[in-house]
Amino acid sequence: MRISQLSAESGVPIPTIKYYLREGLLPQGEQTSATRAEYGTAHLHRLRLIRALLEVGRLPVAAIRKVVEAVEDERTGVHTMLGTAHYALASPPDPHAGDEDWEEAREHVDRLIAELGWAVSPHAPGRDELAQTLLTLRRLGMAAIDADLLPYAAAAMNLARDHEMGMIPFDGPRDVAVETLVVCTVLYGKALEVFRRLAHESESARLLTPARDHAEVRTQDT
Amino acid sequence: MRISQLSAESGVPIPTIKYYLREGLLPQGEQTSATRAEYGTAHLHRLRLIRALLEVGRLPVAAIRKVVEAVEDERTGVHTMLGTAHYALASPPDPHAGDEDWEEAREHVDRLIAELGWAVSPHAPGRDELAQTLLTLRRLGMAAIDADLLPYAAAAMNLARDHEMGMIPFDGPRDVAVETLVVCTVLYGKALEVFRRLAHESESARLLTPARDHAEVRTQDT
Repeated sequence: MRISQLSAESGVPIPTIKYYLREGLLPQGEQTSATRAEYGTAHLHRLRLIRALLEVGRLPVAAIRKVVEAVEDERTGVHTMLGTAHYALASPPDPHAGDEDWEEAREHVDRLIAELGWAVSPHAPGRDELAQTLLTLRRLGMAAIDADLLPYAAAAMNLARDHEMGMIPFDGPRDVAVETLVVCTVLYGKALEVFRRLAHESESARLLTPARDHAEVRTQDT
Repeated sequence: MRISQLSAESGVPIPTIKYYLREGLLPQGEQTSATRAEYGTAHLHRLRLIRALLEVGRLPVAAIRKVVEAVEDERTGVHTMLGTAHYALASPPDPHAGDEDWEEAREHVDRLIAELGWAVSPHAPGRDELAQTLLTLRRLGMAAIDADLLPYAAAAMNLARDHEMGMIPFDGPRDVAVETLVVCTVLYGKALEVFRRLAHESESARLLTPARDHAEVRTQDT
């Protein structure tokens, strides 16, 4: 298809497509004459991936380039390719080298992951993110012991194992696998966050004289 | 205690305490002379609550004032008070009045919550947040049917029922209950998000020829 049709089918404006071509995020089309190039479904898949990384993952162009490079390099295994996208979604804290509380929290996280038996790289940014969360909980006076954390680890693993890994089409194009991973991670993550708040409200209503008090929230809120 | 001791015990600088007093977020101390006021543990609790809403909840001062008003007004039931904090943490999308896809997504959410039997106010901002997430999933070509959403609802309710509601000290000061709710919601929510990414990595390693490929992530990442 021509660039105009690629734009129509993908919903991405032509100038934006040209920008992605210049930035190397989108591979060049097949040149059929001096002024004309042909694009195919691979380009459509790539545009969907870029949109997912940009709009859902909210990644900067430099991070998108890294993910696209992993997708394009067929020597990069699928696990590593997915890991590149996952790591790009992380927001690890600034390093706290030499801070004793930080070192202790990070060791706590490493020990916990080892005890869970999870196959997670020692360099996974999630380890630092989790250590930071632990540290903040403690500074606010919450114990944040393993008994508090394990239910979250168990819930996450159940969702990953029984539900989420099955969503990713491993046998299709590499772009599509990464796009699905990013969309699932971010948007079902958002759904989970909202369901938690709704579940809190519901349980709070059930525990705390529901009928009268529940009506109060409604009135106050309108 | 004097304001200087309140500052030392809470870790909040005196000018910030004075700002909270002016803004009405912190109740005035007991005036013991023209230039001296006494503060107590209630002030310490309030300062901890304000810090949690500010640093963990990342709420603007106007939203913090609303939460503080609900905490201070003893006629506000505990369920409504907690709901005020919860609703302040929400980030509902802009209204989409008249947009058919939006109306359909919102009806889908309302039906789902009714089928779950959850006691959630019709005005809970989470309903709109969930509808927006559904809409985005669909625009990206994901079916996002009930079978996809229900595991998240179940995981959230299990955590709320078996674990999270028990963390909140309902029999203590009102400030402490709200502070705990906000800290638990936000920080354990962050822990859950990170555990999900770690669980994905671990499952991906398990499914996709772990040994070799897993080592690749490590090498690439150093």
